[in-house]
Amino acid sequence: MPYPETATGFQVTDLKNWSTFTKQEFKLKPFEDDDIDIAIDACGVCASDVHTISGGWSEDVPLPLCVGHEVIGRVIKVGKNVKDIKVGDRAGVGAQVGADLTCGQCKQQNENYCPNQIDTYGAPYPDGTLSQGGYASHIRAHQYFTFKIPDGLDTNLAAPMLCAGLTTYSPIKRLGAAPGKNIAIVGLGGLGHFGVLWGVALGADVTVLSHSPSKKDDALKLGAKHFVCTKDKDWAKPLAFSFDFIINSADATDKFNLPDYFSTLKVGGSFHMVGFPDNPLPAIQAQAFAGTGNYMGASHIGNHQEMVEMLQLAADQKIKSWVQEIKISEAGCKEAVEKVYNGGENGPRYRYTLTGFDEAFGKRY
Amino acid sequence: MPYPETATGFQVTDLKNWSTFTKQEFKLKPFEDDDIDIAIDACGVCASDVHTISGGWSEDVPLPLCVGHEVIGRVIKVGKNVKDIKVGDRAGVGAQVGADLTCGQCKQQNENYCPNQIDTYGAPYPDGTLSQGGYASHIRAHQYFTFKIPDGLDTNLAAPMLCAGLTTYSPIKRLGAAPGKNIAIVGLGGLGHFGVLWGVALGADVTVLSHSPSKKDDALKLGAKHFVCTKDKDWAKPLAFSFDFIINSADATDKFNLPDYFSTLKVGGSFHMVGFPDNPLPAIQAQAFAGTGNYMGASHIGNHQEMVEMLQLAADQKIKSWVQEIKISEAGCKEAVEKVYNGGENGPRYRYTLTGFDEAFGKRY
Repeated sequence: MPYPETATGFQVTDLKNWSTFTKQEFKLKPFEDDDIDIAIDACGVCASDVHTISGGWSEDVPLPLCVGHEVIGRVIKVGKNVKDIKVGDRAGVGAQVGADLTCGQCKQQNENYCPNQIDTYGAPYPDGTLSQGGYASHIRAHQYFTFKIPDGLDTNLAAPMLCAGLTTYSPIKRLGAAPGKNIAIVGLGGLGHFGVLWGVALGADVTVLSHSPSKKDDALKLGAKHFVCTKDKDWAKPLAFSFDFIINSADATDKFNLPDYFSTLKVGGSFHMVGFPDNPLPAIQAQAFAGTGNYMGASHIGNHQEMVEMLQLAADQKIKSWVQEIKISEAGCKEAVEKVYNGGENGPRYRYTLTGFDEAFGKRY
Repeated sequence: MPYPETATGFQVTDLKNWSTFTKQEFKLKPFEDDDIDIAIDACGVCASDVHTISGGWSEDVPLPLCVGHEVIGRVIKVGKNVKDIKVGDRAGVGAQVGADLTCGQCKQQNENYCPNQIDTYGAPYPDGTLSQGGYASHIRAHQYFTFKIPDGLDTNLAAPMLCAGLTTYSPIKRLGAAPGKNIAIVGLGGLGHFGVLWGVALGADVTVLSHSPSKKDDALKLGAKHFVCTKDKDWAKPLAFSFDFIINSADATDKFNLPDYFSTLKVGGSFHMVGFPDNPLPAIQAQAFAGTGNYMGASHIGNHQEMVEMLQLAADQKIKSWVQEIKISEAGCKEAVEKVYNGGENGPRYRYTLTGFDEAFGKRY
């Protein structure tokens, strides 16, 4: 059964061999009136993909699974309710493909916190079909979670904005990045490099805090004003009461001395996490928050309006994410997820985008 | 050497016998032009006093130490710079007696986060004198940390407002309690009962969350609209996405299942701690914050403006704290701190105020 009943993708079939991908067909959810089908041309490789297939966040992973939630391609079919997107448009899908759109959260533009949200991969649709991601020939998603890509954005550079971009943009915007604000981005990786780009684009004074002194040049090239190496002794002392908020994109927070980070916040500031370690956070004293009256929190991607706003900001300001392309194939997917998993000097700077979908899946439009 | 060089108070001399108080003289800091001397008539008994003298928060406690930072009495001397307070006024001192008043925090009305703040007891003054608290005949404090008590407030009822009251008022105000807001107060003790009183006074809809079903009647009498027992199975489920913020006054947070509490917050809401356990908080996953995009934080007392505002609110709305009086003496201090330490059915409902200072120290004005 070919498309439109199915798509073909690179799936993980066994958590023990989590970096082994098999090209095979999988069922798409039944097409409904609000749905949009996209023939995929590019998909970013997100750390979430790796945490998921390696069983780091949970060993309860439905298999076989096709990951990938930074998808851009060409619209090839739209349901009759679809309003703002038409066949032939370039469109993208991020980390969410559904929500009830009726609950209190959805009504307040917080559909990314809907208790009935559907993740782009690994989540059951009401009919039982498992959602499957973008390392694939096609994706089907509700129109509310499908976004026109503004002209001027390169497909391969824009793809990672659909998850990593939005995940950083949403808290940076909600926490009030603007001229006159001092913000810090912890960790310069896929998420962190977007944090710097958005912070700078919104006019804030951006400091990068990283344990890798080798990231300094890149941080400054991305637009950060300052770079501080968190391996330096007493690094936090000169920064006491400095930042309006911190976006922590590292997924090694379990190894952090959190009170050091908290001490660099202005009174009432927030230490906001967008990178999630496999391990629990350090057990700290409640008093650790009292020195600057600060907060620690996290967020989950962003909402529809923030996605639209972010993509337009990127187009208007000609913001370019730093992407390395890898051709999609069984070997290409393996290479990408292993390099993300291992990180370090051979890891992505700062995002991989899988490309070459026509070669893998044939011309689909 | 009697007053004005010294005061007489009930001091702890040995952490191992932390509830044994000895009545003795101690040196006051040198009198300066901004200082005010108060002959004390009442002092609340704060859980901080007990955490301090029992070595729970730290074993590095300077001894001998007179605790107590909810002080009200009569002004008997003012320095020549003192503007708004005069001899004969009724005035109070809370948990802070000094700050540099020049740093960034102080200039932004956050002197309660000044890195050079001086706690009311146990902190060294620049000349080396140790600050000593209010289980005593007199206290000397800088005018910025001394507050006129509005007419209409009873001395013995108002004393606990100087720390417990302010510690809850400040975050409740800063987090925006107002009509239309739903807030929760966790724990109905000295702090929590003030949380309910202030939340109600500011017009919010207040829910008390407590593990003691026996507190329900009191919660409702204090003005809470709802009471939920956190020992009930699945107590949090019906409260999903309910609260704009939570004030956690319990000092047993180390035993909490924090994700349950987080799940009851609206998107972006705060779980704000004002009670600090001796033990570290539970080690939770960063993802625990992502379900409602919430924050966890804490604060340290409140600022000058909030103290003035709170006392006036209490006077205007005739808010009465729930106080049991204990006569100050070696035995009275012992009884009070042991009852606070042991808590439970024989603990305070909801605050002890030490009274009878004339009997203990003689008539001082």
